[in-house]
Formats: sequence, C-alpha cells, structure tokens
Amino acid sequence: MDKFEKQFEAYAELAVRLGVNVQPGQLVVIDAALDAAAFVRVIAEKAYDAGARMVHVEWSDAAVNRTNLLRSPVDALSEYPRWKAQGYLEMAQAGAAFIGIHTPQPGFLKDVAADRLAASQRAAQQALQPYQRLRMSAQVSWLGMLVPTQAWADQVFADLPEEQRLSALWDVVFQVTRADRPDPVEAWREHVEQLQARLTKLNDAQFTCLHYRAPGTDLTIELPEHHVWVGGGNRTATGVVTVPNIPTEECFTAPLRTGVNGTVRSTKPLYYGGKLIEDFSLTFREGRLVDFTAEVGRDVLESIITSDEGARYLGEVALVPHSSPISQTGLTFYHTLFDENASCHIALGAAYPINLQGGAEMSKEDLLQHGVNSSMVHVDFMIGSAELDIDAQTGSGEWIRLFRQGEWAD
Amino acid sequence: MDKFEKQFEAYAELAVRLGVNVQPGQLVVIDAALDAAAFVRVIAEKAYDAGARMVHVEWSDAAVNRTNLLRSPVDALSEYPRWKAQGYLEMAQAGAAFIGIHTPQPGFLKDVAADRLAASQRAAQQALQPYQRLRMSAQVSWLGMLVPTQAWADQVFADLPEEQRLSALWDVVFQVTRADRPDPVEAWREHVEQLQARLTKLNDAQFTCLHYRAPGTDLTIELPEHHVWVGGGNRTATGVVTVPNIPTEECFTAPLRTGVNGTVRSTKPLYYGGKLIEDFSLTFREGRLVDFTAEVGRDVLESIITSDEGARYLGEVALVPHSSPISQTGLTFYHTLFDENASCHIALGAAYPINLQGGAEMSKEDLLQHGVNSSMVHVDFMIGSAELDIDAQTGSGEWIRLFRQGEWAD
Repeated sequence: MDKFEKQFEAYAELAVRLGVNVQPGQLVVIDAALDAAAFVRVIAEKAYDAGARMVHVEWSDAAVNRTNLLRSPVDALSEYPRWKAQGYLEMAQAGAAFIGIHTPQPGFLKDVAADRLAASQRAAQQALQPYQRLRMSAQVSWLGMLVPTQAWADQVFADLPEEQRLSALWDVVFQVTRADRPDPVEAWREHVEQLQARLTKLNDAQFTCLHYRAPGTDLTIELPEHHVWVGGGNRTATGVVTVPNIPTEECFTAPLRTGVNGTVRSTKPLYYGGKLIEDFSLTFREGRLVDFTAEVGRDVLESIITSDEGARYLGEVALVPHSSPISQTGLTFYHTLFDENASCHIALGAAYPINLQGGAEMSKEDLLQHGVNSSMVHVDFMIGSAELDIDAQTGSGEWIRLFRQGEWAD
Repeated sequence: MDKFEKQFEAYAELAVRLGVNVQPGQLVVIDAALDAAAFVRVIAEKAYDAGARMVHVEWSDAAVNRTNLLRSPVDALSEYPRWKAQGYLEMAQAGAAFIGIHTPQPGFLKDVAADRLAASQRAAQQALQPYQRLRMSAQVSWLGMLVPTQAWADQVFADLPEEQRLSALWDVVFQVTRADRPDPVEAWREHVEQLQARLTKLNDAQFTCLHYRAPGTDLTIELPEHHVWVGGGNRTATGVVTVPNIPTEECFTAPLRTGVNGTVRSTKPLYYGGKLIEDFSLTFREGRLVDFTAEVGRDVLESIITSDEGARYLGEVALVPHSSPISQTGLTFYHTLFDENASCHIALGAAYPINLQGGAEMSKEDLLQHGVNSSMVHVDFMIGSAELDIDAQTGSGEWIRLFRQGEWAD
C-alpha cells in the first residue's frame, strides 16, 4: 500500500472509529455524491469491520441536481419528498449513525438563481426538521467530512500546476485531519483532551457577555444562564462518544437570542449551497439582524436571512485560535467545515440544544424561553483574524481578556 | 458531435420519447447504478426537453451492494426499508414515469451465497409488491434498458482485444435498439406497427393451446379464455403509449396457470441477480413445476422456485422469431433484456394482468380464478432456437403450424 492509500484508509477509519464511532449492530447511513464513490466504498468495509449491521448509502449527483435547479419549475423545487424525510427520521429513531461526505464543487451552481436555490433548500430544511432536531440535540451519531474534488483543488491551489493540485489538497486534508499521523485515532484522543481542558475552564467561568473588536467589528454577545461550551466530542443520548466534525478545533456555545448588539465583519468568503458570499457585514440590535451589506452574493445572504424569523438571530458562537493547524496552512478552503476551524465564527439560525444545560430534553418553546434560538437554517460564518480581540465579562461584572490578536489571552 | 455522441443522445432520447413517453408536468424517476452516470445526466436533460416537472434519481453502487450482501447479517438483508417502498408507491400513484437503467456486472456476485442473495431479493420483491402491481397492470409508464459496462463487454466480446470490446458492445446496443438509424423514433414506429399486425392475428385466433418441440423440449401450454397478446407498446391507464422494453421483439401473453405439462430445456444462459444459471431443464405437471435440473447454478434456480408458491408456475409465454435482429448478431448477451428478445421464452412467476381482458382492473384473487398466475417473482428464461417447432390449437380443436425451425410458419 502506498502512502496515499494508507492515509486514505486512515481517513475512512477516522470516520467510522472516531467520527460516528460505529457500534456493533448499528445501521450506518452515508450521504455522498458520486464523486466520493471510492471513499464511500472503503468506509462501508470499515463500518462492517466495526460491527455495522447494514450500510445504506443515499447517493446524489451534482450534475443532475444542477439540472433540476436550472430546469424544474420553482413550485416543484419547493417540494421535498415526504417519504424520504420520513426515511431519515425512521433511520435516526432506529439509532443509525449518519456520515455526510461533502465534495465541494465551487462555482458549479453560479447560473442558478438565488430564489430557486433558496426554495429547494428551504423545502429540504423544513421536511428534515424532525430529523435535524435529533441530530442537533445529540440523539444520534453524525459526522460531516470533506473529500477533495478537482474543482475544489483548482480553487484552493490555483497557483500550482493543474496536475499537482488534487494531490496537494489531499495532502493538506490528511494533515489537518491527522490522517497522516502514525496513530490517527490516538492523535485525536490527545487533541480532544486539550479541547476538553479549555472547555472546562470556559464552563467554570460562565461568562455573561463577550465583546468582539476587530477592523469593521464591534459586537457584544451575551450568553444565556446555564450555557454549556461544547467541543471535540459529543456524547450521544446512548452514551457513545462521537466527533461530529473532522476536523474540529472549536469551543462553541449558544448566544443569548436577544443579547447581540453591534456590527461584525466577515473575514473569509462563505459558500452557501454552492454560491459565494464575500466581504459582508451584519448589524444586530437586541439580537435581531437589522442591517447587512455584502460585496459579493448579497442576494444569497438575503435568502438565508429571510428563511424564517430565527434566521435573523444568532445560534452559535465559536472560539478558534488563529494559530489552529488549519489556519497555519495559510489557505482559504472556501468551505465552512474547514474554514470555520481556522477561525472564530458565529452562526445565523438554530442553536444546538446541547449548548444549554438540559437543553437536549427541552422543546423548541422551552429553549426560546431560555434565550436559545431556533430556525430551519444554521449558517456559520468566519469573523476571526490576527486582529481580533475578545473580552469576556464574568458573573461579578468584571471584564477579562479572552482573546488577543486572534489567540487565547492566557 | 461525433458518431458515438450522436447515437448516445439518440439512445437517451428513445428512453424519454419512446420508452416512457414523458408527458408535460410529469415526474421522471430513474433507477441507475453509478456506472451509468453519464447516460443518466443526458436523460435528465432530455426529460426536461419533453416537459418533465422534476427528475428524481435513485442511485445504487454495485460495489457497496456487494459489500452489503457479503458482510451484513442475513436477517438485515431480509429487511427492505419500508419508507423506500412507500416512496416508490407514492411516486407511482402520483403518475411518475420510471426508467430503469441496468448496467450488467457479470460474475460480480459470484462469491455471494445464494441464500443471502435470495433473502435480499425476496425482501425487495415483497416490499415493492404494491408498486410492482401498478407497473404490471400498466397503471404507470416504465422502461427497462441497458447501458454497457467494461465487465459486460469483456464477457460478450471475449474474443476481441480488450480495448475494443466496450466500443463494440456500444455499437451492437445502438444497432439492436435502432439508435443508429437516421430517425430512431420513426424506425420504432414502423417496428411497433409490424408487431401490432402479428398481435392482431394472434388475438383474433384465440388459440387454446401451444405445443413446443425441440431437443430436450416437449411441452404443452394451455392459454386462458380471453387472453390478450401484447407487444411493442403498452397503453397506460392514462392513455399514454409507452414501450417498456428497449429493445423489444416479442409477442407475449399469459399461460393458463394449471395448463402446463411436459419438459422444457433452456437454450441460453440466464443471469439472475448477478448469478449464472445454465443448461437447465424444467418439468411441469398441471402447471406446477415438479422437477428441474441445472448444470450450473442449481442453487440459484432453486432459490427462485422457492420464492413463493406462484414461482412454481408460469406467468408468461413469449414468441420471438429466431431471425430477430438481436438473434442475428449471433451474440449471447447474458442479460435477459437482450437475450429474451433474441429467442422464444417463458417466465416463472407473476403474469401481467394486461394479458387478460379486463385483467388490469382485477384483484389477484380474480386473476387466479381466471387462471392467471401471481407471484413476487417474474423470471424469464430462453427456450428458442433454430430447432424449435410450435403448433397451436384453435378453438375448434384443430392444430396448426405456428413456428417452424424457430420462425413464424406463415
């Protein structure tokens, strides 16, 4: 086995053993595009090695999806098959593990009108809400990870000769996901422990407010009482420890829905449903988004914000030092799963119920009453940089330094 | 556009315009393996050209399926997702058109135990029965067609240098499906008209019994009262003319369930669920299969026959002259969709309700009372050759020559 094959296998092994942590007798559901076929086949074998009962793959094809988005009437795009949403819910209720393999195709949907894309996404989000709720409250094991495509490599490594780009991207992916380490699962154990130490500090502190300052940014985010900082691994309802994102470098919690004030400027481009939003700025008053600008993709940003009322409020605040391994590559990946782990970020839309003590058992209404947002959407965007300072207010009203120049201050 | 691309497009056009005959506003459902991706993408475009409302693709992957069949416990193989069966039924009830693209992978499942394969197939057949009933009674538009794979080409053209095989197979596929004609749809119109003339004769004659004689074969098949010979096109419940098989050269009807006596020998190999059955012989008494032999794949044949009681009875009798275009290629295709159109054949299992006057509106019980078989399975096998003679008995008891040396006698 050559080096690439070895790391390719290790990456698949991470999905099964670390990511969803497949248990004996478990159904494994893989969502993947045709481009990821070779990787999916390896995951299927590894899932059985771990004792899986059955592997079910929901395939999709970027080209057929694009044809549908371009040519189907908009009212047809607004329908998501009920039986399919029911399928996801039933598999989740049966305790399945869900592995989502993303294969970025930057620019592929640039000819699709934003309203058509939004109609399609909204239909899926609405139909899949009961299933998503189980995911966000850690009732099921799930994982999102990325597989390089030529188009993605062309974007990230535009400066390299064409024939070197894909292999360069694979190398970086193996590096930042630790698939290149002699014992990747063990390397992850150490990494998760370090995150855990940071989380313990944050949870003990129970800050009441964070204050962000950077060029174009002056934003305060209050945190709800009994908020919980989460990171690295999740423990699901059945007690299985999973790592829902590979890679992951963040400590995140829920903001107080009505406690966000000021303006924040994005520091990295954001791809949403295959469309680019860049150089944008959001202004909040008492939690609600009251103004926004965007140099690129203003219509896409608008379609996110108008998804529902909850899309105008924040649902996540995440801390990532600017020196994170992903940030150290010096690359922009144009994909949230990587870029969010290179940078402090916040998210519009739904909060994770696990970010409130007892939240996983609460109804949407209970969560709202505790100041925790709900929405059909959850869209992270990057606000971190080497110029970001964050102060934190303690329960006694004192302000302390949390981040300086993009790094933990302590 | 080069010659291959032109014929490739014409083949996709046949699926849409002739096969399921897509109507404005219709949902088009495509079942395909990943190997057929390029062809599926062209079909999707052509479907929208014809006014489709949405194209839904159910992808599958031969490699993952094989892994499941080899490694999943047999009780998991015996479960077909209910939500998925419900999905097919709902789409059929909503008037969708179903295009099944088959990509033969001969020998690919040779390591899978016959009982495991049978468990999986039986689960699917059972779960999909309500949907299949709508198909077999022409309530929906559907189509089966083939797309060449390297493995299939290796088998059919084993004598050619490896790099020529796939393109040779494509050429033959275009030829026997008339995709190589200047106006393929018009060529099909003529062909269907000729089949129609033959069907009219057979239906007017209302033969009571057929007597087959060939080396190893001496078989009588009674036909039920009010049987209907069908071929070429179907008219669906909504009046749309479809051609469910491309290619198709057969005139077929339902046998009288309890009216089959004697022995019949196969003349071509049969692939069932990826496994080979060859040189087999079946003996019937009063319709029921009472004995069988097979040089190759006896266990696979047995698993078909033991699917349910109906699998021991015949459900189709089909007449194809030995000089059919597919037969004239001189090739064995190791796939029923092609081989059955090169040869007279009969099928174990379910009969098509459309082969009885008023049958499409009858319940399973009504059909049985009229002597028309039902089963979860429907497995065609080939019994035609240049040595096959068939006599037919008229209503007045007279015997006439129907086939001589594999050809129509008149």
